[in-house]
Amino acid sequence: MSRSTSGADRREALRELLRVAEIDALLVTNLINVRYLTGFTGSNAALVVHASDSASDEARTRLATDTRYTTQAAAQVPDLAVQVERSSAPPLVTKAAEDGVARLGFESDHVTVDGHARLTKVAAEATGCTELHRAPGMVQKLRQVKDEGEVAVLRAACAAADAALADLIAAGGIRPGRTEREVGWDLEARMREHGADGPSFETIVAAGANSAVPHHRPTDAVLAAGDFVKLDFGALVAGYHSDMTRTLVLGEPADWQREIYELVATAQAAGRDALAVGTGFGTIDAAARDVIAAAGHAEHFGHGLGHGVGLEIHEAPSLSATGPGELQLGMAVTVEPGVYLAGRGGVRIEDTLVVRDGEPELLTQTTKDLVTLPL
Amino acid sequence: MSRSTSGADRREALRELLRVAEIDALLVTNLINVRYLTGFTGSNAALVVHASDSASDEARTRLATDTRYTTQAAAQVPDLAVQVERSSAPPLVTKAAEDGVARLGFESDHVTVDGHARLTKVAAEATGCTELHRAPGMVQKLRQVKDEGEVAVLRAACAAADAALADLIAAGGIRPGRTEREVGWDLEARMREHGADGPSFETIVAAGANSAVPHHRPTDAVLAAGDFVKLDFGALVAGYHSDMTRTLVLGEPADWQREIYELVATAQAAGRDALAVGTGFGTIDAAARDVIAAAGHAEHFGHGLGHGVGLEIHEAPSLSATGPGELQLGMAVTVEPGVYLAGRGGVRIEDTLVVRDGEPELLTQTTKDLVTLPL
Repeated sequence: MSRSTSGADRREALRELLRVAEIDALLVTNLINVRYLTGFTGSNAALVVHASDSASDEARTRLATDTRYTTQAAAQVPDLAVQVERSSAPPLVTKAAEDGVARLGFESDHVTVDGHARLTKVAAEATGCTELHRAPGMVQKLRQVKDEGEVAVLRAACAAADAALADLIAAGGIRPGRTEREVGWDLEARMREHGADGPSFETIVAAGANSAVPHHRPTDAVLAAGDFVKLDFGALVAGYHSDMTRTLVLGEPADWQREIYELVATAQAAGRDALAVGTGFGTIDAAARDVIAAAGHAEHFGHGLGHGVGLEIHEAPSLSATGPGELQLGMAVTVEPGVYLAGRGGVRIEDTLVVRDGEPELLTQTTKDLVTLPL
Repeated sequence: MSRSTSGADRREALRELLRVAEIDALLVTNLINVRYLTGFTGSNAALVVHASDSASDEARTRLATDTRYTTQAAAQVPDLAVQVERSSAPPLVTKAAEDGVARLGFESDHVTVDGHARLTKVAAEATGCTELHRAPGMVQKLRQVKDEGEVAVLRAACAAADAALADLIAAGGIRPGRTEREVGWDLEARMREHGADGPSFETIVAAGANSAVPHHRPTDAVLAAGDFVKLDFGALVAGYHSDMTRTLVLGEPADWQREIYELVATAQAAGRDALAVGTGFGTIDAAARDVIAAAGHAEHFGHGLGHGVGLEIHEAPSLSATGPGELQLGMAVTVEPGVYLAGRGGVRIEDTLVVRDGEPELLTQTTKDLVTLPL
């Protein structure tokens, strides 16, 4: 895990993958991947990275965007040639053909069937004999492992979310009579006060029986004494997403609430403890799931254990029973088991962590002890 | 333009298009199109609509989603068969093959190359001899024309934005010393107070020289006396997006500010006046653009005149010089010319309107007179 990588470092790492895949160049059209490889944040762009260039000589590596972003591209990507065109990807295919690229990879998990038809037509009309080849997920593979610069930003995003929740609780913002929506907006405003650019996804506030719905959208439902209040939220900082879930109780918890809370907390700890370099994703999922299953609640935990986080709120890897692969040093992942009892209520506890040698680094630091709020 | 249409009405209108295109059934995977045709708002779904069914006998029309949405699908789509599967689209292809569909259309402007490969494989493995055919933009074509139920929701969204801006100005919320970000958040909070589910896109607040950047993101730049303050924002209500831009001046406007403001206002009025049933999109764009060009500012207006709005903030039609087609009764569009003087400042004035017989209906009712704010 490197201290911090530049766009040039990342493009050099991508070249290694291109050579293994026997592709001469990759056309990158997924804007998040363009951002990762160049730092460019505009809403229209494409990039070509050549396998045979080097980090010290990127003469043929080229970004294309439109006239709206001429100034921004020059400022954000001073180290690459920038081509300004109305449509970004097709001219890059023409240029790649002129540059003698025979096998041009494209992101087949992103390009639509119609988009592919346009690119194929352009390639056929260009000089040379460029052929398009499917190359899905190559940049996503690199993005799974975070460098220390990325971890620092994720840490800041998680800290903003922690601080916002602490403020909300201290201000008595989670109380009977407020609606789920009001609590959600209050939490988002407080994340902004702590430096977030905004929420990292649509904030989930689910009270009472609604807490049994895994991805409930906030409604005008009013919080009441005795409710579970499940908060699943995160802060967006410099393009990186934090992700945390906490489940609180309004007033004194009932026995069944204490019981499932402790169960989920135990399962979540088991999941975190399993986060070691080289452990298979399925094994990590099982570490938490087995705890819940042993208590007879297997069918009340219907989703995967966790997912990667970074420039997207959900990205590779997937920590689930069927996910192939194993943990690598520097992956940033969530661990979020839940038990959902339809019509009664549910508990989910979620942290964002970074895989380290030895213990993982916990980025979301809000307590996981059962918090009971005064009425 | 119909008073209000049900999902069944919309599916019946789609069947007409399928018959013209000689497609036996359409696989709909674009979630916004699924929502339009069924009312289903979950994050995973696909739909098959058969050309040979009728509105009164939709026995083969079928929605697929996953277990997270079993209850929601039953509640939102009581009139259709719902199939619950982990992956939504592939099982619908298998079922369509069993139902004897020979030509199955798919949304080739939405399905990725990899997604298409999976569907083709499923079709090949199924009984029957189903072939996949490209069918882009069919539902988008229907969505261009709004019914009165949709217009009522758009009207409410525009009213929330109008009321929020009025409140913000009355409260002195746009004043020297505040940052662009603070003004944006304040405006968003006020839209929520007026019934919005949230902003309909990332609110643009651009002060001083930043107002010359057409799609500036709010920063920590501080508003100052003499600045243009450009606000481009909207409210989201029940899935529908409002869109409005106003440009104000902090304190007494300079002569050059009055001059370009009046020019843009005149061009915008000309664009609105051109909104008549049957007028070509290029003609409408030219009506506004010619005013700006005659004043010598052609190169300072680099974007199209407007776009459709509805379940997406940008949807068909495109009101631009190259846009083919003509206005139809019931289309909801924006009219938003601008003049941007790099390094100095810019003005854009934008309304959302509905095409009617005679005058268009203006949904965004905030004044377009030059508003000067007290210092």
